[in-house]
Amino acid sequence: MAERGFVLWFTGLSGAGKSTLAEFVGKRLKELGHKVEILDGDEVRENLSKGLGFSKEDRDINIRRIGFVANLLARNGVVSITAAISPYREVRDELRAKAQAAFVEVFVDAPLAVVEQRDVKGLYAKARAGKVAQMTGVSDPYEPPLKPEVVVKTGEEPVEASAERIFSYLRGRGLVG
Amino acid sequence: MAERGFVLWFTGLSGAGKSTLAEFVGKRLKELGHKVEILDGDEVRENLSKGLGFSKEDRDINIRRIGFVANLLARNGVVSITAAISPYREVRDELRAKAQAAFVEVFVDAPLAVVEQRDVKGLYAKARAGKVAQMTGVSDPYEPPLKPEVVVKTGEEPVEASAERIFSYLRGRGLVG
Repeated sequence: MAERGFVLWFTGLSGAGKSTLAEFVGKRLKELGHKVEILDGDEVRENLSKGLGFSKEDRDINIRRIGFVANLLARNGVVSITAAISPYREVRDELRAKAQAAFVEVFVDAPLAVVEQRDVKGLYAKARAGKVAQMTGVSDPYEPPLKPEVVVKTGEEPVEASAERIFSYLRGRGLVG
Repeated sequence: MAERGFVLWFTGLSGAGKSTLAEFVGKRLKELGHKVEILDGDEVRENLSKGLGFSKEDRDINIRRIGFVANLLARNGVVSITAAISPYREVRDELRAKAQAAFVEVFVDAPLAVVEQRDVKGLYAKARAGKVAQMTGVSDPYEPPLKPEVVVKTGEEPVEASAERIFSYLRGRGLVG
């Protein structure tokens, strides 16, 4: 039974596989005895950030709220997994600096061409047609992390392989047994 | 070492002693080995609800956010203590119904005359002078709980006595040892 909390912060484009990976890794961590909460972008917007839009300012507020809650959980022994796009580097680095538990940033690095072709939610097609404004990667910036703890290439490898990369890092750092 | 999380939800007028009692009870719970987080009204507004005002709608949104976070913590074994005025009965009852851990509502029942005379933050004087709008108890409603788990009379008894009332209830319910 592991009692050590940490923040596992996924960042990447819409459709890159953050939620899928969060669920997959979260399930395995639970099997290992960890307490786990997944703070998914859409669910958190509903519960913490209804009314906020997608301007840089509103996105940053939303991400700070997720970070605040993730930190509260992590410092109490819970593994907080976040799966929001979190496109801006500065606010991610701010949360890392404030964290009172280990902060593990995972860059879910799938090329725009790949996620746009998959277009799971149909958002890229809408963005290209001008029906969705402020689409990250299309009409809004995405700032990749400069020194993420883990990089996973979800456009090239199955979810199991990406998860194994993450567990390998977590084991190396002594965060999982 | 207790691992059982629950929500300890204080409600009452501004100046009734919610934060003082939350700190006092929180400290004792920590000494007993519980994990404790205090979600204080002002701190939570800063981190989760900046930009919201004091209309019924905005207050309800703020309280729902506190409830969402309190529940996340409580279901992971943390004692979440909230200390926001939370003037509206319906949203408190909604959070109680949704809670995935024990939900203990503590009515911090100090008469308006008493808290207004103390006026710790100077808000009542400002409200009477028309400089603070939507002051609970003065120009905004406060709906006392109909069936709170605990009632403490902070206008008549010292904080130790109010805390003992709360611990007595928690022991009876098996939430503390």
